[in-house]
Amino acid sequence: MNKALEHYLLRLADTALTQSQRLAEWCGHGPFLEEDIALTNVALDLLGHAKLLYEQAAEISDRDVSADDLAFLRDVDAFKNPLLTELPRGDFAYTTLKQYFLDQFNVLLYAALKDSQYEPLAEIATKALKETRYHITRSRDWCLRLSLSTDEAKQKIQAALDDLYFYTPELFETDDDLNQLIAESIMPDLSVLKEHWQGQVDELLNECQLQVPKSGWVATGGLRGEHSEHLGYMLDDMQFLQRAYPGCEW
Amino acid sequence: MNKALEHYLLRLADTALTQSQRLAEWCGHGPFLEEDIALTNVALDLLGHAKLLYEQAAEISDRDVSADDLAFLRDVDAFKNPLLTELPRGDFAYTTLKQYFLDQFNVLLYAALKDSQYEPLAEIATKALKETRYHITRSRDWCLRLSLSTDEAKQKIQAALDDLYFYTPELFETDDDLNQLIAESIMPDLSVLKEHWQGQVDELLNECQLQVPKSGWVATGGLRGEHSEHLGYMLDDMQFLQRAYPGCEW
Repeated sequence: MNKALEHYLLRLADTALTQSQRLAEWCGHGPFLEEDIALTNVALDLLGHAKLLYEQAAEISDRDVSADDLAFLRDVDAFKNPLLTELPRGDFAYTTLKQYFLDQFNVLLYAALKDSQYEPLAEIATKALKETRYHITRSRDWCLRLSLSTDEAKQKIQAALDDLYFYTPELFETDDDLNQLIAESIMPDLSVLKEHWQGQVDELLNECQLQVPKSGWVATGGLRGEHSEHLGYMLDDMQFLQRAYPGCEW
Repeated sequence: MNKALEHYLLRLADTALTQSQRLAEWCGHGPFLEEDIALTNVALDLLGHAKLLYEQAAEISDRDVSADDLAFLRDVDAFKNPLLTELPRGDFAYTTLKQYFLDQFNVLLYAALKDSQYEPLAEIATKALKETRYHITRSRDWCLRLSLSTDEAKQKIQAALDDLYFYTPELFETDDDLNQLIAESIMPDLSVLKEHWQGQVDELLNECQLQVPKSGWVATGGLRGEHSEHLGYMLDDMQFLQRAYPGCEW
């Protein structure tokens, strides 16, 4: 079981870390000061989730690794985040909608993981859920504000939806390891989660008067370590310090 | 003398390497296919110069280092290139004018270094000069073509001139080490070189009908290892492979 569990903990940790890194890119570039600080705070929360998850993964790993090793010394094909979290940050509408899709997923996921049969994960989920509930009020509110304001803002968030929508199915992907954990009630059934997620998302997009794009493609690969070129550049930046100064600490 | 010589060889090598890296970013992004290939070829020539210079620096160094170590395992504050070569590539006009400034400098420099009292450097200069003479016919020609064509092109190259001009004085900067080498006829007197460079540049800018911006600032620091934030990001990308897979070879 440990192998499957380590795999899933890394999936969760890599997702939180890459999502955090992209949000952190807004630091000093937010549309106004309060929003700049808010984006950075959310990034810090997600970094906190990543830390807890990496620590747990390191603890159960057969290999002699630390949380820092897992975050900073693995290369692209070892990362398990969905492609959605590695996409470039884009403009504010793009970041906002991406953030909402992920917040909506995380709120449902952590609410379910609170009841995980694996106690350490249930504890992390309980902590993460509180913060994620705050995140989603922000991203949901911003989706509405942008969609229902000027033509330019509406156009930008619609363009973001057209770009991002077919990256979302990957959030619910499973493999043999994850199916095993689902069977053992360590993680929730993602197909059930997907129905709830879709219901919530449809409701918001409808309220925003946005047009759901017609399907034609679906992008996946992260769970298998198959990533876009964007992740490589992200790791270049994110891992430089540990690579150049191995074992360095603050 | 070795310390001063190593310092200067690294100055030359770091300049060629960073210039090459920025040009290589055009690979697959050139304005049309022939130009795309030409830019990449110039980048490869410069990488060749950097390789020869790093090898020579490694050979005379007191430290047990290889050319690869010097290129890929030094951090920002050890790099000695002028700020000009680390600036982001910008648009095609920006790249073209920057390239011309550097080609004009390199043509004069390598022509003088052919007579260096330090034989290995004279040999490298002889080889590099041939290629640089080809480079400058291209960059000079493109400056004229852009400046004397459409309003948009002229506007872009004028904007590039306004941005870049006050980074050029740094090319002629010296310090105690370099002054020692000048006194020993290992490298040419850069103040003399500057006069020739300025004459050539003034002539071309005049022919291009471009307005030389009024001075107000001069940017320097590279020779002392004081760099802009751009160099850090460049090294992230450029050094990742050697940092992540130490000692790797093709």
